Amino acid sequence: MPTEIRVLEKPKLNAPVFIEGLPGIGYVGRNAAGYLIEELKAKKFAEIYSNHFPPVVLLDPKKTGLMMPIKNELYYRKAKNKDQKDMIILIGDSQSMDPEGHYVIANKIAEFLKKYNVSQIITIGGFATGQIIEKRMPKVYGAATDEKEIKIFEKHGVKFKDTNIGQIIGASGMIVVEGKKQGIPGVCLMGETSGMLLSDPKATESVLVVIAKYLKIKVDMAKLEQRVKDIEKVIKKIEDLQARMVSGAKEGSNDEHLGYIG
Amino acid sequence: MPTEIRVLEKPKLNAPVFIEGLPGIGYVGRNAAGYLIEELKAKKFAEIYSNHFPPVVLLDPKKTGLMMPIKNELYYRKAKNKDQKDMIILIGDSQSMDPEGHYVIANKIAEFLKKYNVSQIITIGGFATGQIIEKRMPKVYGAATDEKEIKIFEKHGVKFKDTNIGQIIGASGMIVVEGKKQGIPGVCLMGETSGMLLSDPKATESVLVVIAKYLKIKVDMAKLEQRVKDIEKVIKKIEDLQARMVSGAKEGSNDEHLGYIG
Amino acid sequence: MPTEIRVLEKPKLNAPVFIEGLPGIGYVGRNAAGYLIEELKAKKFAEIYSNHFPPVVLLDPKKTGLMMPIKNELYYRKAKNKDQKDMIILIGDSQSMDPEGHYVIANKIAEFLKKYNVSQIITIGGFATGQIIEKRMPKVYGAATDEKEIKIFEKHGVKFKDTNIGQIIGASGMIVVEGKKQGIPGVCLMGETSGMLLSDPKATESVLVVIAKYLKIKVDMAKLEQRVKDIEKVIKKIEDLQARMVSGAKEGSNDEHLGYIG
Amino acid sequence: MPTEIRVLEKPKLNAPVFIEGLPGIGYVGRNAAGYLIEELKAKKFAEIYSNHFPPVVLLDPKKTGLMMPIKNELYYRKAKNKDQKDMIILIGDSQSMDPEGHYVIANKIAEFLKKYNVSQIITIGGFATGQIIEKRMPKVYGAATDEKEIKIFEKHGVKFKDTNIGQIIGASGMIVVEGKKQGIPGVCLMGETSGMLLSDPKATESVLVVIAKYLKIKVDMAKLEQRVKDIEKVIKKIEDLQARMVSGAKEGSNDEHLGYIG
Repeated sequence: MPTEIRVLEKPKLNAPVFIEGLPGIGYVGRNAAGYLIEELKAKKFAEIYSNHFPPVVLLDPKKTGLMMPIKNELYYRKAKNKDQKDMIILIGDSQSMDPEGHYVIANKIAEFLKKYNVSQIITIGGFATGQIIEKRMPKVYGAATDEKEIKIFEKHGVKFKDTNIGQIIGASGMIVVEGKKQGIPGVCLMGETSGMLLSDPKATESVLVVIAKYLKIKVDMAKLEQRVKDIEKVIKKIEDLQARMVSGAKEGSNDEHLGYIG
Repeated sequence: MPTEIRVLEKPKLNAPVFIEGLPGIGYVGRNAAGYLIEELKAKKFAEIYSNHFPPVVLLDPKKTGLMMPIKNELYYRKAKNKDQKDMIILIGDSQSMDPEGHYVIANKIAEFLKKYNVSQIITIGGFATGQIIEKRMPKVYGAATDEKEIKIFEKHGVKFKDTNIGQIIGASGMIVVEGKKQGIPGVCLMGETSGMLLSDPKATESVLVVIAKYLKIKVDMAKLEQRVKDIEKVIKKIEDLQARMVSGAKEGSNDEHLGYIG
Repeated sequence: MPTEIRVLEKPKLNAPVFIEGLPGIGYVGRNAAGYLIEELKAKKFAEIYSNHFPPVVLLDPKKTGLMMPIKNELYYRKAKNKDQKDMIILIGDSQSMDPEGHYVIANKIAEFLKKYNVSQIITIGGFATGQIIEKRMPKVYGAATDEKEIKIFEKHGVKFKDTNIGQIIGASGMIVVEGKKQGIPGVCLMGETSGMLLSDPKATESVLVVIAKYLKIKVDMAKLEQRVKDIEKVIKKIEDLQARMVSGAKEGSNDEHLGYIG
Repeated sequence: MPTEIRVLEKPKLNAPVFIEGLPGIGYVGRNAAGYLIEELKAKKFAEIYSNHFPPVVLLDPKKTGLMMPIKNELYYRKAKNKDQKDMIILIGDSQSMDPEGHYVIANKIAEFLKKYNVSQIITIGGFATGQIIEKRMPKVYGAATDEKEIKIFEKHGVKFKDTNIGQIIGASGMIVVEGKKQGIPGVCLMGETSGMLLSDPKATESVLVVIAKYLKIKVDMAKLEQRVKDIEKVIKKIEDLQARMVSGAKEGSNDEHLGYIG
């Protein structure tokens, strides 16, 4: 069972909106999803395991000595009033390590979303401009499967047309496209970031503002910047790790700086 | 379903000739196929998806914000008179990213062609000489599965014998060879190009002239050069992308120049 | 059958403890497992073969000219008194060469352990600090799946909390985590090593002392240092080999220093 | 069908000896097998195709313009008198490009040999010493699955004991080991070569002399040196090709020196 979704609970959801936030440029997606889960008190109902993740065990960042397998996680949050929608949120430690795995995992997720009658897919990423962004609120760029999606998010200030974005690499793009094959419309929202920050709170906030408005949820941004800083250290280690894995580093090799273990 | 041909329409074709033009040296194949499809008003009837393509979503080059999955496409064009033949044309965004995928995809295509009773396979590529080609019409080199094919195309000026070509890498070769296993004779036509041009209109024209004569179709070359220039920008982005993917670059990594998205 | 466990004998074991020691940092795991097998006169009962091991045949290090396939091996040792526990020990020539193989092999092993009703998994690795360790007995660091395991080994001086270990790469981590999925609690014990020694007898001894105390077995350390030195030469060759394989070296290539054969 | 043996003829063979000679160090194996096939007028009866070979089509080295798929080939030769044995000889364009493929292909071949009731496996390789070999006849080194095989070939001057050979990479080792799993004893004969020659006729001759004596066949070495030189050019191209493929070169990329085609 190379890629597997383990269901812990089967919530009854009403045409939920799906939101994805996995590690990527500026950790915009991961940070946004993490913040949403925390602020909305979303509940975990499934875990995704895959042979395409790095062959690594993470230790609890709280330094308790507990081992945690690499995984992605699915949370849900039910609407609190008529204006809101039920939500499914995807967060995780890692994307696929290899090209083929991106197809396999995105397809598995899309099939799962279809079963839950998901009505819309929103993926979150970062768009790296290579330039320091001075302004308070970075732009949000978008790409979508349908004109209708574009119109919806243009109303919330997302820029879709005449951007310089040529392609979207990895999960944020693949999940939307695989979802579309299942008949689910989707959009990818990308927070403008310099690309020089490991983890960019401003870009994250820009995207969260759009999502909060669109989904009519309240998200208090006060704790965002601190939270983003807190997880930077964890991210740093994972990033370094993945870079070495992908470049074909030998397992169990000695690394003086990070103290990896074989 | 790692590699899949999605049939949109089932045209009735009479022993069609198959023409392949995927991205490769000088984009000779891709440009030739694209021009044929446009000039002949060929109609799309199937799409090919594969886990072996890059795990990337392309954005509409017209900058509308619409997302397009990486795919190959099959078009058909029925003969307009007794001299012509029915045709199937293959075009696409990408070849396989990994060695094994070339076998998988070529085999899938060959089996599909067999079902459509294809009578002949013509693949199009570029042959990079490493030297600037001054002459108006670059040569067309060939390689084939059968002596009969060689004779047919030698009549149209294609050079098969005593070339310095030792091997053909990728789809242009693999599809011919897999087709031969299905009993379909085939030829690979290669336009001479310096190898320094990203996209070489002259080499493309040379091959198109041979094909037009052989298939007794009219192809107006007037718009070719402009069209080739128009798609250079798109090609450039895809090329850069593939180079990084193959060299094991991390998904979602920051790239200052191209602004990739994670 | 890409990854296969060949059972040579079916011993009846009573809720055995499983101990893993494969090649890794400082060869701590491999050396510890080898020493345990020898000292306890453990008996081989199964062999593991996998397509994910290097495509190489080893020659008998005693220079007899006999060929030995790359494999992992499972040994058992029955308790000699009421205080002891039955044991299964894993040792081997190599870990997986590719990321996906780590998942495949660890999963296969975990399923096998479940069948043998294994009660606890102990994996052994090295933790490279990058600094020369002057003290006689290096520390032993730990990570575990459960608080209960942490408490057990903290009593024996293993440090779990507030370490700088962020992740565990390869078999030592993967087998614990896959075992946990099968309901078996586990711990990874890591001997502190500089990371500069190919094979570190002191780190090995530190871990062996913990295991011997915990399992109430007698292990005479007198021969350890000599034994570790003896196998360094063999290790050196395998290490070099794996480094080249992973970095994509061509099979059968010429290597002046090691005299590899094609 | 990723790896497939296509049987062209089903010869009745009496407990044949199997001889392997694929490209490797000094092309000793490939040259020896090619010379045996020619001298003994062995007849092709099967072809091996695999997704693990390079995704490339070769052009006929006679420069006819004909395309030839990458393959391995099986020949047979029936005994001419009571002293001789029936033989199966494996030759080919390439070994597997990836580590896993070595396992897959060797296993496929071993199962095939079992069906043909093969009594012994002899694989041929080169052992690169890194030093110019001045003497007329280079040594032949050996490694085997059984003491019995060692004794047989020691009588013919092959050196098995106290060599510096630590491992055998690729097909020459893997086929012997996979054959042994099928119950067939095997030996790997390695001609001593400097490792600096692309293709070493002397090392090839040394191995051929051993095989000819052992199998009581007559092999006229007169044409060997010329023949080896003739195929050097072809080899050169394949070698360069494989080096690039393995190092992750993009398909269809431009190469000024070799004129590859996309």
